[in-house]
Amino acid sequence: MPNPVLVEVTRGNLVESRHTGAVAVVDADGATVLALGDVAAPAFPRSAIKAMQALVLVESGAADRYGFGDEELALACASHSGEPAHVTGVERMLRAAGLDASALVCGTHWPLHQPSAQALARAGGTASPLHNNCSGKHAGFLCAACAMRIAAGGYEEPGHPVQREVKAVLEDLGGAAIPDERLGIDGCSVPNWAMPLTDLARAFARFATGRGLAAQRAAAAQRLRAACAAKPWFMAGTGRFDTELMQHFGVRVFTKGGAEGVHCGALPELGYGIAVKCDDGHGRAAEVMTAAAIARLSRLEARDRDFLGRFVRPTLRNWKGTMVGSVRATEALDATPSGSARA
Amino acid sequence: MPNPVLVEVTRGNLVESRHTGAVAVVDADGATVLALGDVAAPAFPRSAIKAMQALVLVESGAADRYGFGDEELALACASHSGEPAHVTGVERMLRAAGLDASALVCGTHWPLHQPSAQALARAGGTASPLHNNCSGKHAGFLCAACAMRIAAGGYEEPGHPVQREVKAVLEDLGGAAIPDERLGIDGCSVPNWAMPLTDLARAFARFATGRGLAAQRAAAAQRLRAACAAKPWFMAGTGRFDTELMQHFGVRVFTKGGAEGVHCGALPELGYGIAVKCDDGHGRAAEVMTAAAIARLSRLEARDRDFLGRFVRPTLRNWKGTMVGSVRATEALDATPSGSARA
Repeated sequence: MPNPVLVEVTRGNLVESRHTGAVAVVDADGATVLALGDVAAPAFPRSAIKAMQALVLVESGAADRYGFGDEELALACASHSGEPAHVTGVERMLRAAGLDASALVCGTHWPLHQPSAQALARAGGTASPLHNNCSGKHAGFLCAACAMRIAAGGYEEPGHPVQREVKAVLEDLGGAAIPDERLGIDGCSVPNWAMPLTDLARAFARFATGRGLAAQRAAAAQRLRAACAAKPWFMAGTGRFDTELMQHFGVRVFTKGGAEGVHCGALPELGYGIAVKCDDGHGRAAEVMTAAAIARLSRLEARDRDFLGRFVRPTLRNWKGTMVGSVRATEALDATPSGSARA
Repeated sequence: MPNPVLVEVTRGNLVESRHTGAVAVVDADGATVLALGDVAAPAFPRSAIKAMQALVLVESGAADRYGFGDEELALACASHSGEPAHVTGVERMLRAAGLDASALVCGTHWPLHQPSAQALARAGGTASPLHNNCSGKHAGFLCAACAMRIAAGGYEEPGHPVQREVKAVLEDLGGAAIPDERLGIDGCSVPNWAMPLTDLARAFARFATGRGLAAQRAAAAQRLRAACAAKPWFMAGTGRFDTELMQHFGVRVFTKGGAEGVHCGALPELGYGIAVKCDDGHGRAAEVMTAAAIARLSRLEARDRDFLGRFVRPTLRNWKGTMVGSVRATEALDATPSGSARA
């Protein structure tokens, strides 16, 4: 059975586009709180699990050894926009381990933040691997390898000890072995393993609560969540969904998007993990699905509902600023008996 | 019944994302050649119908009065990338009618072509309405109004004579009245009316063949098609799907994409019009659907099949250039009894 339509895009009086998808909300014991669509199908989590990949940075002792604070830890969890302070932060991480940008294998793209890209060009500069949205994660892998006193070269190979440790972390958090054949290569060249949405959601519930984790891992997760809540701009950037949500909610909400319509998150107070996959890979819909799931499940105050409203039902404006339509969660998703999202 | 999955996106051994959609191929008499999915549902054609909007430019006498050649006519049909020769071409069109960029109401965005955007910033410039991908269409509307000796101001209003004439053209070509309530406002602020895919496909069949059209309209359509075939770079830009297809096929294939996953086209030799809508609005899938429909229906030589292969099944590479997956037409779409697409 196809997944349900969870998000609609309107223009004028008509629905112009539709997004199907699946949403899993699970607690740390693996009990299902909400399941829409096929939540058992494996999905590549892509960048949504960067905070879990960053556990290796903390658990290896690298974060302590190199004196990393909230900004560096948030950058290790980031899909950043390549704004100047993102770039200098990643440079600082690399320098702490005696490295520079030449060690990064993430590849090069221009800053996602258009004013920063324009300013870079205006200054006669050009894009480098530091501007790649994944450069903080890569710096984290490199620092972990250095602290583990193993060769950093080849850190992107699935068989490198850092990546083997990442896979073990994901299996521990998700509560299930991940077959090797579920391997894909991510946009930034590191391995990514497809996981059922329920396992991904459970992984986030455990990441958010520490339940069932070894004490050291639970403490590392807590430290990373606190860093992201303290410095959410370093996890994404100006105007970005994850930054705006975490700036508003602080430690009450954790969210992180990935490519191809994956979005994950957690509601630590409730002990819930969230994993969303928009079937067609569209990020605009994955964000609405995530915001709607939070609105549906959280105990929200009026100001929280007001804030979330523009993410559950974003307005579409054209190049002149005229309102031409909206993106909105469907009733299948936005069932709000408590009236949270549309109150 | 939901529309079928027509395009899959793979990574490693798995399908990562899926696109459903509808494809209509119709001849000039309205006979269905191919129908996949719900081809009766109205879809906003968006920029896919720019060549039809440009009929008003030619039929009003403006193209002759202002001495427009193939480049200017292709720009009037274009969603251009904002490369330097696109911008100077649109300036030339406006100047011919005694106007300048201040008359454009399309709004401003930076060039879609990233090297051009970077060069603009590097030179200390900034984006203007001329860089908007729709500026050539808007220049066409303005020139038509001037040639018609009516006020050009408000040319974006649904009630302006130029837009009323555009609607009449679409009804004539599509063979059906379009209810006023199917109005939407496009990204560039002009009206856009939703039409069933079958009517859109028929409109392109008639645009491509002239069948059933008044002689003057058939001649104007022929002139616009010839201009786009002669100067396909001016219809889109460097590396763009429509430009590459028309550079290869010349007058044998006409294609034009629009926002939100609409793509239209025609195979004039066969007398077929094509209209595609990807349900979720993703252009990558609409392009694959269009290429696959052309591959399925055309009489192709070996070099045409080789050329089309990379559009029916584009390779996905990451920032390092590593092949990580592909986008591919499913069997529902890519049924090639003649072995055309995958031979």
